[in-house]
Amino acid sequence: MKVPQGYEFNGISCGIKKRKKDLGIVISKQSATVAGVFTTNEYKSNSVLLCQHYIKNSRARVLIVNSGNANCANGENGYQAAEKICAQVARTLNIKNEEVLIASTGIIGEPFPENKIITNLKKLISVAGHNKVMDFARAIMTTDTYPKIAARNLNCGGMILGVAKGAGMIAPEMATTLCFLFTDVGINRNVLSSVLRQAVDITFNRISVDEEQSTNDTLLCFANSACGVKIDTSRKITEFKKAISGVLQDLAYMIVSDGEGATKIIKIMVKRAKNSNIAEKIARRIAGSVLFKSSIYGNSPNWGRIISAIGSLRLGIGEEFDVYYGREKVVTNGISLYKKRGKIKKYLEDNFEIDITVDLKKGRADYFLYTTDLSPEYVRLNS
Amino acid sequence: MKVPQGYEFNGISCGIKKRKKDLGIVISKQSATVAGVFTTNEYKSNSVLLCQHYIKNSRARVLIVNSGNANCANGENGYQAAEKICAQVARTLNIKNEEVLIASTGIIGEPFPENKIITNLKKLISVAGHNKVMDFARAIMTTDTYPKIAARNLNCGGMILGVAKGAGMIAPEMATTLCFLFTDVGINRNVLSSVLRQAVDITFNRISVDEEQSTNDTLLCFANSACGVKIDTSRKITEFKKAISGVLQDLAYMIVSDGEGATKIIKIMVKRAKNSNIAEKIARRIAGSVLFKSSIYGNSPNWGRIISAIGSLRLGIGEEFDVYYGREKVVTNGISLYKKRGKIKKYLEDNFEIDITVDLKKGRADYFLYTTDLSPEYVRLNS
Repeated sequence: MKVPQGYEFNGISCGIKKRKKDLGIVISKQSATVAGVFTTNEYKSNSVLLCQHYIKNSRARVLIVNSGNANCANGENGYQAAEKICAQVARTLNIKNEEVLIASTGIIGEPFPENKIITNLKKLISVAGHNKVMDFARAIMTTDTYPKIAARNLNCGGMILGVAKGAGMIAPEMATTLCFLFTDVGINRNVLSSVLRQAVDITFNRISVDEEQSTNDTLLCFANSACGVKIDTSRKITEFKKAISGVLQDLAYMIVSDGEGATKIIKIMVKRAKNSNIAEKIARRIAGSVLFKSSIYGNSPNWGRIISAIGSLRLGIGEEFDVYYGREKVVTNGISLYKKRGKIKKYLEDNFEIDITVDLKKGRADYFLYTTDLSPEYVRLNS
Repeated sequence: MKVPQGYEFNGISCGIKKRKKDLGIVISKQSATVAGVFTTNEYKSNSVLLCQHYIKNSRARVLIVNSGNANCANGENGYQAAEKICAQVARTLNIKNEEVLIASTGIIGEPFPENKIITNLKKLISVAGHNKVMDFARAIMTTDTYPKIAARNLNCGGMILGVAKGAGMIAPEMATTLCFLFTDVGINRNVLSSVLRQAVDITFNRISVDEEQSTNDTLLCFANSACGVKIDTSRKITEFKKAISGVLQDLAYMIVSDGEGATKIIKIMVKRAKNSNIAEKIARRIAGSVLFKSSIYGNSPNWGRIISAIGSLRLGIGEEFDVYYGREKVVTNGISLYKKRGKIKKYLEDNFEIDITVDLKKGRADYFLYTTDLSPEYVRLNS
């Protein structure tokens, strides 16, 4: 696998989880510009709190990630444990503590197993290598069934590599999303932050089912200048933004398709709303309806559940809306075309990716979201 | 079964559902005062729209209810069909059309089977009787596993009988709740409306998981004066309100415990909030968390999901909150008491009714809600 220059990766088992990789590291040979997007949950993991503190310096060398323990709701001890781990990594590599960024995912409210991690740091660091991305990707997984990696080459030189872990897809706000981007180009910190925010808005924010987020969600981008290319013209920034969005879109799609117990991907598109706020509200309400999602799992052509979900928002959008399953119109001006049920049942049975469109015919604002169906398997996994 | 004076009931199969009762009627021998509470969904069943129109007269003689078809999202035809049915009942009984109230539950977006209903009205009415409450209760069921009936005698004379049908308990807003109360006392319409609103607020509104409601939710109270007692003093009104609340509380509890695929009832109590708005938001957010509800199904002591759910609301309530499972404190000032996991696992395994308390220690406002766990069976039922 081609990876950006100047990065080494590793992932090992340190004993938090049984017989599975649970500790990963990425080391940049030179100091990298970093930007991040974090959960807005009121209760944040101690690892998120420390990472938010350190990232204020805008530069870092190392990312250390554990899975199996969220380092959350465990008080001052958890924060101090995260500090100790970063300090130990820094000592080993002879860098500053705040050049080590940390992220965690796993169960909330357990003591943080700092000793298991600290004991294994030397082993983790000493055999890190350019070719061990897959080990890192495996080490950050929780309920994911496969590691999630995506990449883009830049025409102007350099590349972007992304590694992510997924989340339960009914309520992704409750399960952690981690996503890390590594590029070997150089870029101004403010430009990187702005590009990242915009790219996240049309990718990772489109697989959320609610405004809510987990205690641990962390998205970071490292840019270490190792390939010698600088993203310093508007043409290059445009290309970079497109590539970042492409990597994030690939990873977001992988997270959805690997959603816990998911058997189908659903794209919900709300078209021609008066404003994008209305379009987004409707898309998120449908994506959040477990009854609708159960019906897709069962290949049941039950668009009444979409009508009821839209109506429950009381947005005053009136009766003049259409609903489509794939290209087939099933509701016209609020009235169900019930004779289509047979045809739509076949569409649901035959397709893995289901397109649902709500056309409000009121304005020019569109909004789309990806989600999955809800299967009995999801409940079993989470119980 | 003792029933209030002056009412006749019946329930038969008219062919909307296969081999199951699907058409019910209640006839009051004399004109009754009526009051109702209806869904606030933007898209209402045509049966709801007609019922809301007729109930403006404040008096009625008949309630006709079908299950199997919601009479919703089927356009003008559905409204006219409901009118025809009420007119036919009125003709048969020689009363005014607007003295016949209608309610429906079932699939959304199918043509309303008016002919099946109209053809069977004579049969339905001719053998209605004082002792056929159970037939009526069965005729309004959809996914309920048993008919739901509750009653209270009044010391001042007369009684209140209630019949209800339930709903999916993850998202009750998406499945119809029907509830009908019949009393043989006499009461002023405005007093009845006010009592009903207050009683619903502390009973049926406490089993909702969201502000949202189905297209068909209907709650009606008939008071026909047949026993000769008038509710006309503040003492009697207080007693009447308490009895109405008792009947509604019993029915609400039955609906929750018969929730689709439910194996447990969860009572969520939020205590000592700064104001009741905050308390209600937190209770509803927890009740709406499918991850939390899946964990209760699996007897999994995972209170991290409660912390994350509260934090996702970003209400700025700070760290100083406690969480209890039963009487056992599991989170103190935002920190997990992880050693309690074994004890709580046993509490979850041993109990059918699970009490969750969040103590905010900030003020004097409390709010409680009932919900259920989420089982794989729920998803299977709805797919």
